[in-house]
Amino acid sequence: MPEPIDALFSTPEMVAAFSSTAHVQGMLAFEAALARSEARAGIIPAEAAVIIASHCQVEAFDIETLYREAATAGTPAIPLVRMLTAHVAGEAQKYAHWGATSQDAIDTAMMLQMRQGLYLLERALLDICAACAQLAERHRHTVMVGRTLLQAALPVTFGLKAARWLDAVQRQLRSLRALRVEALAVQLGGAAGTLAALGEQGLQVVAFLAEELELPAPDLPWHTERDRVARIATTLGIIAGTMAKIAQDLVLLSQGEVGEVSEGRTAGKGGSSAMPQKHNSVDSIAALASARRALSEVPALLAAMSQEHERAAGGWQTEWSALPALFRYTAGAVAHVGAALNGLQVDATRMKENVASTGGLIMAESLTMALAPHVGRPEAQRIVNTTCERAVSSGISLRQAALAELQIHTVLSADAIEHALDPSAYLGSTEALIDRSLNAYQEELQGSQ
Amino acid sequence: MPEPIDALFSTPEMVAAFSSTAHVQGMLAFEAALARSEARAGIIPAEAAVIIASHCQVEAFDIETLYREAATAGTPAIPLVRMLTAHVAGEAQKYAHWGATSQDAIDTAMMLQMRQGLYLLERALLDICAACAQLAERHRHTVMVGRTLLQAALPVTFGLKAARWLDAVQRQLRSLRALRVEALAVQLGGAAGTLAALGEQGLQVVAFLAEELELPAPDLPWHTERDRVARIATTLGIIAGTMAKIAQDLVLLSQGEVGEVSEGRTAGKGGSSAMPQKHNSVDSIAALASARRALSEVPALLAAMSQEHERAAGGWQTEWSALPALFRYTAGAVAHVGAALNGLQVDATRMKENVASTGGLIMAESLTMALAPHVGRPEAQRIVNTTCERAVSSGISLRQAALAELQIHTVLSADAIEHALDPSAYLGSTEALIDRSLNAYQEELQGSQ
Amino acid sequence: MPEPIDALFSTPEMVAAFSSTAHVQGMLAFEAALARSEARAGIIPAEAAVIIASHCQVEAFDIETLYREAATAGTPAIPLVRMLTAHVAGEAQKYAHWGATSQDAIDTAMMLQMRQGLYLLERALLDICAACAQLAERHRHTVMVGRTLLQAALPVTFGLKAARWLDAVQRQLRSLRALRVEALAVQLGGAAGTLAALGEQGLQVVAFLAEELELPAPDLPWHTERDRVARIATTLGIIAGTMAKIAQDLVLLSQGEVGEVSEGRTAGKGGSSAMPQKHNSVDSIAALASARRALSEVPALLAAMSQEHERAAGGWQTEWSALPALFRYTAGAVAHVGAALNGLQVDATRMKENVASTGGLIMAESLTMALAPHVGRPEAQRIVNTTCERAVSSGISLRQAALAELQIHTVLSADAIEHALDPSAYLGSTEALIDRSLNAYQEELQGSQ
Amino acid sequence: MPEPIDALFSTPEMVAAFSSTAHVQGMLAFEAALARSEARAGIIPAEAAVIIASHCQVEAFDIETLYREAATAGTPAIPLVRMLTAHVAGEAQKYAHWGATSQDAIDTAMMLQMRQGLYLLERALLDICAACAQLAERHRHTVMVGRTLLQAALPVTFGLKAARWLDAVQRQLRSLRALRVEALAVQLGGAAGTLAALGEQGLQVVAFLAEELELPAPDLPWHTERDRVARIATTLGIIAGTMAKIAQDLVLLSQGEVGEVSEGRTAGKGGSSAMPQKHNSVDSIAALASARRALSEVPALLAAMSQEHERAAGGWQTEWSALPALFRYTAGAVAHVGAALNGLQVDATRMKENVASTGGLIMAESLTMALAPHVGRPEAQRIVNTTCERAVSSGISLRQAALAELQIHTVLSADAIEHALDPSAYLGSTEALIDRSLNAYQEELQGSQ
Repeated sequence: MPEPIDALFSTPEMVAAFSSTAHVQGMLAFEAALARSEARAGIIPAEAAVIIASHCQVEAFDIETLYREAATAGTPAIPLVRMLTAHVAGEAQKYAHWGATSQDAIDTAMMLQMRQGLYLLERALLDICAACAQLAERHRHTVMVGRTLLQAALPVTFGLKAARWLDAVQRQLRSLRALRVEALAVQLGGAAGTLAALGEQGLQVVAFLAEELELPAPDLPWHTERDRVARIATTLGIIAGTMAKIAQDLVLLSQGEVGEVSEGRTAGKGGSSAMPQKHNSVDSIAALASARRALSEVPALLAAMSQEHERAAGGWQTEWSALPALFRYTAGAVAHVGAALNGLQVDATRMKENVASTGGLIMAESLTMALAPHVGRPEAQRIVNTTCERAVSSGISLRQAALAELQIHTVLSADAIEHALDPSAYLGSTEALIDRSLNAYQEELQGSQ
Repeated sequence: MPEPIDALFSTPEMVAAFSSTAHVQGMLAFEAALARSEARAGIIPAEAAVIIASHCQVEAFDIETLYREAATAGTPAIPLVRMLTAHVAGEAQKYAHWGATSQDAIDTAMMLQMRQGLYLLERALLDICAACAQLAERHRHTVMVGRTLLQAALPVTFGLKAARWLDAVQRQLRSLRALRVEALAVQLGGAAGTLAALGEQGLQVVAFLAEELELPAPDLPWHTERDRVARIATTLGIIAGTMAKIAQDLVLLSQGEVGEVSEGRTAGKGGSSAMPQKHNSVDSIAALASARRALSEVPALLAAMSQEHERAAGGWQTEWSALPALFRYTAGAVAHVGAALNGLQVDATRMKENVASTGGLIMAESLTMALAPHVGRPEAQRIVNTTCERAVSSGISLRQAALAELQIHTVLSADAIEHALDPSAYLGSTEALIDRSLNAYQEELQGSQ
Repeated sequence: MPEPIDALFSTPEMVAAFSSTAHVQGMLAFEAALARSEARAGIIPAEAAVIIASHCQVEAFDIETLYREAATAGTPAIPLVRMLTAHVAGEAQKYAHWGATSQDAIDTAMMLQMRQGLYLLERALLDICAACAQLAERHRHTVMVGRTLLQAALPVTFGLKAARWLDAVQRQLRSLRALRVEALAVQLGGAAGTLAALGEQGLQVVAFLAEELELPAPDLPWHTERDRVARIATTLGIIAGTMAKIAQDLVLLSQGEVGEVSEGRTAGKGGSSAMPQKHNSVDSIAALASARRALSEVPALLAAMSQEHERAAGGWQTEWSALPALFRYTAGAVAHVGAALNGLQVDATRMKENVASTGGLIMAESLTMALAPHVGRPEAQRIVNTTCERAVSSGISLRQAALAELQIHTVLSADAIEHALDPSAYLGSTEALIDRSLNAYQEELQGSQ
Repeated sequence: MPEPIDALFSTPEMVAAFSSTAHVQGMLAFEAALARSEARAGIIPAEAAVIIASHCQVEAFDIETLYREAATAGTPAIPLVRMLTAHVAGEAQKYAHWGATSQDAIDTAMMLQMRQGLYLLERALLDICAACAQLAERHRHTVMVGRTLLQAALPVTFGLKAARWLDAVQRQLRSLRALRVEALAVQLGGAAGTLAALGEQGLQVVAFLAEELELPAPDLPWHTERDRVARIATTLGIIAGTMAKIAQDLVLLSQGEVGEVSEGRTAGKGGSSAMPQKHNSVDSIAALASARRALSEVPALLAAMSQEHERAAGGWQTEWSALPALFRYTAGAVAHVGAALNGLQVDATRMKENVASTGGLIMAESLTMALAPHVGRPEAQRIVNTTCERAVSSGISLRQAALAELQIHTVLSADAIEHALDPSAYLGSTEALIDRSLNAYQEELQGSQ
């Protein structure tokens, strides 16, 4: 287990999937499957494979000792193979780790762990989709301030905001799923990627191994071609970035002066050691921190792609600790966003008040577009600009200023002006956009059934 | 144009594709296409669209003034729209930039530039594939030292090394092509992403706009959902990382003490101001520097994903300079690797000598595997280990040590020992792997015709 | 000049200091000073030095050609030395670039540029200090909401906020100044850092060269020990980070719903292409983008420290483009923060209203501390917690709730309660802290006179 | 403890210094010192302080529960204060955590941990200095190939290389020490940095607290001014970068074809699971991986500087996990470089052979400088260039080619040519440079006694 403080930015399931124990287990799964594959290919005796596989039980291995020896050996696979060989008695002992190299075991184990990690992330993203879909539907008509550069711009609905989040998260789901076939792969190449120790049957063994482990078989061994790993890493980075966007929105909407959403309250959540009145956005903030932690792993993994010759001195070893960290922190970001969204309190009244508190200025573009067919967009913009300035300087609403403005009321009727200033009448394609996002989600759900 | 020093790490074509002029041109293409789309949708007069489009010529715009005003306005789209509106005379003036926001113009322009950038990268990667394929075929049997952790491990062939590069670059080509449909997209949402200023016809205009510009139409406006941009960015990052791997290998193989490859000599290339004898790996080194420069843009773009509400204050603006830089530097990395590979001098004799200079130790695993069927892998490894140590300490070859070793020559005949120590006889699936890579390339070529 | 879009995130002065022309000028300054130093050491004829130096005029060099050749040669110093040698006629020609290597010229030129860059940054930071000092003094008593995790916590004054910014910026000034003696240095080591071509007089020439160029002389040549460069880079990174903090605060305080500050309005500044009412925080946002751009250069420069042997293949070349970019973007961040602060509109009334709008909840800790001497901190916190909850649920102010609460008014008099709820009476050491920051600034000013 | 795989890239001491237990201990040290300081200032009863301090024993706290609650509360300080308050019985209970906020406890604890971390790093860097000094002295005259861009350039000595490493590491030591007074600091500001809860005595308590904890007292609370933290982070980043440079050199020198150094052999170190002959540079490679891991934390910490208002939502929380990771990995890089250097096997014979194997081409500059006084540098370079080319194309040594070259032997005597081609006669200031580095080290040692 990583330090408890790091666990704040992850989930127990992902911590388990990337524990050292899970890694050893993965290497043992590799060794067992390798033996079985070699037996199927007639390279080693079937009996030996059975015996070797029977000893590939993580419980029988002393993880602490293994990693202590790994520090000296330079890789955890060397002590693992030594220990496994010691466990396997008699004739079968001869065939343990036959034809493989340390990196084969380590990379394949990491792939198995990542497969589990991708599964966990997919499940967690589906939870977020469900939460977003519910918010999008429920708040389809909940008008709120649309903000650009953190200033009131135009009215939107909270449903549209949630629908946009949903749309982005669905794209991440599709990216995640593509990794299963396009990025996961077994590793087997032997010491220099030629499969030399397996004679003529190298490729056959790779194919069997892939079958045994239910991982794709790569065209070629990829000991120092790490684009698959980098692709997984960057896909997680984009997920973390997407989580940061949602969490940032939530933190900003939760500000006291905005007050439009707040995280659900449970006992002890979000209190303060000094200020009893405070209710902090604990999950959104933890999501932001988790996402930042995840993002700091991505450049490390991209830089690590520059791997020397047939096995890297530094870049590969970097992955051993960076990949688990990336999965852990990404899981943290996703889980915390999920928690924040699932209990989210939405204050539709406050949203309405915030729209109103702009004194109608948020409807300036609407008024401009109402005038534009009559006087052209540039002139309309000039007129509305002047009218907005008057409203601000006189401390009146845009409605009052507009009704008083000759250039406006000679062109638009009072009714037309009122209509142009009605936030709920200036939402454009909002509903259609929400529908698109929800429909895609429904298809997604049906497709994955 | 960027500073000349930056141009060392790019190509003229990519510099042009991401020049400020190209960006303005892209925004004008957006404005022209927007007008045409709105005319098709019956929102603005067809005549106005024709006139507006006729003024969308970058030559008529004073780029310097435009960017000076951009500094005050906060975006280049504002002065552009002002200038365009001024150019468009009469009635049509009313309809310029109808219903759009600055970000629609800027994002769509960037997408057009990136489409061109992706095209340039694809072409350049295809050049690399061709060079790798040729090297893979020609050096299919050129035995060389396979190196793990920069130490001699097993024999490989240079053809296999090139085939692995080819395999990796082909995966990048596929990733690049996927971006065309999965990441490129027009942007049109109006000020807050609701398409409010286009009334009921927003989605129709988006569809037309996409048609006009031959870019995919997104489900929803994506002003602050930047995963598409991040996906393009990370794909380029992985390409840069792949180039770094190849360039790193070339630099290492070019070392004086290794001397297995060298970049082609052209007049003035790779000289030294103080040492006339030197022949530096100019292109490989420039590729490494370009790749590092490219990689430093990726985290900036991932961090920029956390964009506030309906338009970001900082993150979006970061993209304006980071995306062009990323495309420029990635192009530099690809071009320099291409140049290095195209003129590459391969010294097959030196490769052979380097294999020989290991005193046969590189064949240790081969000898182990020859013994293993008789005594088991662990025992074989122990015997060979001792034999290697004796060879090293006595300054004799592994062949001599092996022939003198009772535990070996009682099990293996002299012929079998010789065979086990022949590098060209211990290449495993090397040929089959080269074929796989070359076949995939042939299919690729035929597929893309 | 870099692309205009990049210039949005820099200043003309810094762009000039890191132009390619300035770099060539720096290399020529090196060549001239080298010749003079070698003449002083009696290595080359004094006359030759005079002639060489007279040709070290950047105007006489064709920058474009120089960089075109640099692409082939791998470094701009090689064509520069070739051109300079061609310019220098007769006997003196023999002595140009005597005993130096390309890297000596390039690194020293970069150091001269960085000296100028540090000077520009220092001046710009002093402007920010002046602005902060003025704000700190003027708003010493302007009470506003102190916000933790973006929630109202306790009252502070805007003067204290400015004083904290001032304090942080002053630390950056001190860090910047330390670089002049601790990080700047001439580079002269010859081809492999032994000064071999200068015989016995190498160190003497280094000392003279340092004198001539008014740069510190390093103990040893530092061709591949780049910690000096990294220290400059990280110092700029910390400055950029400090700017981001201030800019972020300004953007948040400028939000419509907060409305406590706004950037000064000048013609065309901060408008919107679609929304005439908007007034965007153009400078703060540009500062945030500039800071993000600057920060993306720092890891590139730290990673570049891993430089091979006596001259790096990739890492050093990365600096050529990363260091100029870092200086340019940091200058942009500093300049934009300076512009934002200098014209800053502070709305003290709105600050007061925002304090009031918390319904007194912001005084919860104050009330707790008033109760604590009587009932202990834990019990006080419990009581105030309950009272706050009652205030929130009943929609009354904390004052009303507190006066109604038996556990409070049996311990505190009505006057004491009122006092505990007065924001301006619960500012602790605010004034003393402002004084500390201002006094340090005064000392700073006097010290630097 | 972090995952065992991460421990490969750290040291047990640093892991302990940044364990969650150490953090809790740090927070308790803060709470105890705070109570004592407040008692000294007359704010709380002296007796209460004694009792509170007596309960600040980490053994009495259930770390697991504490962090589980931290996940809900959003900070570990809240459950810690709750638990401490529960432990402290009677009257004293009233005064626990008096006037402080969570961030005061957390930041001060982190500063205490970092003080310990800096101490550990300093000791480890001193070990490296000692190893480098010994190598510099012992190999003062061990001539080897100086390599630029990984090509043979000029002769240097291994002693000079070690002296340059020593010089760089000494600068890091000075930077580390400066942090003790310029970057470490207690944190005490109360909830919004005004010290409001301490009335008039806030600054007095800060001063006492600093005394109690032997940490510097800052001018102002620095809750969201994180430049101190960033400075520590970047200093560690530069140390990691320096370690990467040394480790990279070692890995390159250890390559089979170079063979100039190798890491000391201890049982089990650097073996291979498949290739018994291999002897890998386990420590250098682990140092490279550790340094890369460390470097990926620095940008996270610089980006985290943009902290909102009076307490950050995301940036601060990022530090909780990034700072420990940075210290752990930096310690790993330093320890592994130390281990590699301490047992380093230097093969002076092989170094000499590698010089010889250049066929004298490494002496080209020397020959150029011998000719230059007679014919000028440019002409000399032209002549030597031609001679080198002839040597290479004819497969003869530079000596043979030079003796045969009319333009050379008409100017230089045979003796002069021989002298110009003697590597040990063309080392320039090598000895003086080594002396400078060693002298600085001696002063350092004496100064720190």
